[in-house]
Amino acid sequence: MSPGPRKSFDPDLALERARDVFWRRGYDGAALSALEAAMGIGRKSLYDTFGSKRELFLRALEHYGDTVIRRICEGLEDPRGAPLENLGRVLHKLQRHHASPQSHGCLLGVAMAQADPRDVELAAALRAQLARLEDAFARTFRRARADGALSADARPRELARAFVGLTQGMALVGRVTATSAVPRSMVRAALQSLAS
Amino acid sequence: MSPGPRKSFDPDLALERARDVFWRRGYDGAALSALEAAMGIGRKSLYDTFGSKRELFLRALEHYGDTVIRRICEGLEDPRGAPLENLGRVLHKLQRHHASPQSHGCLLGVAMAQADPRDVELAAALRAQLARLEDAFARTFRRARADGALSADARPRELARAFVGLTQGMALVGRVTATSAVPRSMVRAALQSLAS
Repeated sequence: MSPGPRKSFDPDLALERARDVFWRRGYDGAALSALEAAMGIGRKSLYDTFGSKRELFLRALEHYGDTVIRRICEGLEDPRGAPLENLGRVLHKLQRHHASPQSHGCLLGVAMAQADPRDVELAAALRAQLARLEDAFARTFRRARADGALSADARPRELARAFVGLTQGMALVGRVTATSAVPRSMVRAALQSLAS
Repeated sequence: MSPGPRKSFDPDLALERARDVFWRRGYDGAALSALEAAMGIGRKSLYDTFGSKRELFLRALEHYGDTVIRRICEGLEDPRGAPLENLGRVLHKLQRHHASPQSHGCLLGVAMAQADPRDVELAAALRAQLARLEDAFARTFRRARADGALSADARPRELARAFVGLTQGMALVGRVTATSAVPRSMVRAALQSLAS
């Protein structure tokens, strides 16, 4: 916030703030001036440290994976809980989050929606983060099946992909719905489908 | 494609082409020059006919609802098919579509991902299109329950919301996945959940 020149800044904090601007506004919508203001640095420092807006975005995506996505995965694989209990807790937490008016959805979803289909580097970066999530879901369903909480013919990988799809859809729809009824229904139907 | 001046153009066709630019590139990413080129009109005609880029986008969204979304709803409610057969056919068609390298996802999803949360008019327009889809899913599940194809305690509205979420997620993930395995898994798991 200081208007004077500054020689040093915290690149991690700056990256987190850039991440939040991209999260809220998407890649195209994140103006350089908004990024600079949030990061508290000038254009020269931004380019010197992060290279370009595009590289900053790829770094922000990685940061998102190492924080937000990692916490979701840890929640799914919490050793203190049974797999499907962990799943229910994580989904309800996501549901509450996406139902709040402050929710910006999921940065991965925002980025996927904007990604130029020909941009193979960005697509690969997004797939890598989605894979983290899918793998954590798959391990959760595999453990649940081993515990007998899911039937023996359940397919953990397919279920994992469906749940990644569902959570992405929930994050997206949550951006424009004002009530919590819609995401709550989604979670209830998904959990119900496992119980039967 | 004619470089000469033209006095008249087909507003419907121009709108459809604008829709496709927004679909591929999103709102922020759709440059006015790209819209003009696709629509085959100059900036003055664009503004005279559609008002502004924003109004053009809202019109394109409506056009998408009256074409793409309407066809999905008609597929779900095809009177010749049993409700869950219609559902399977529609989902497999969507899955094939979103797995193709040409897929741009769903215009609603792209727009939701980019929507400024404070833009209440756009959010309402998006909710209206989502509601069309949700209602068609809900009627399908209600008929399936009445036919005995779904159990008596199935909740059509919740299922409908979950399937809207899943199809949105599938459209989104399809934008960055090169293989058809992921969307196919999603559809299989979702249909499987109804069968059990």
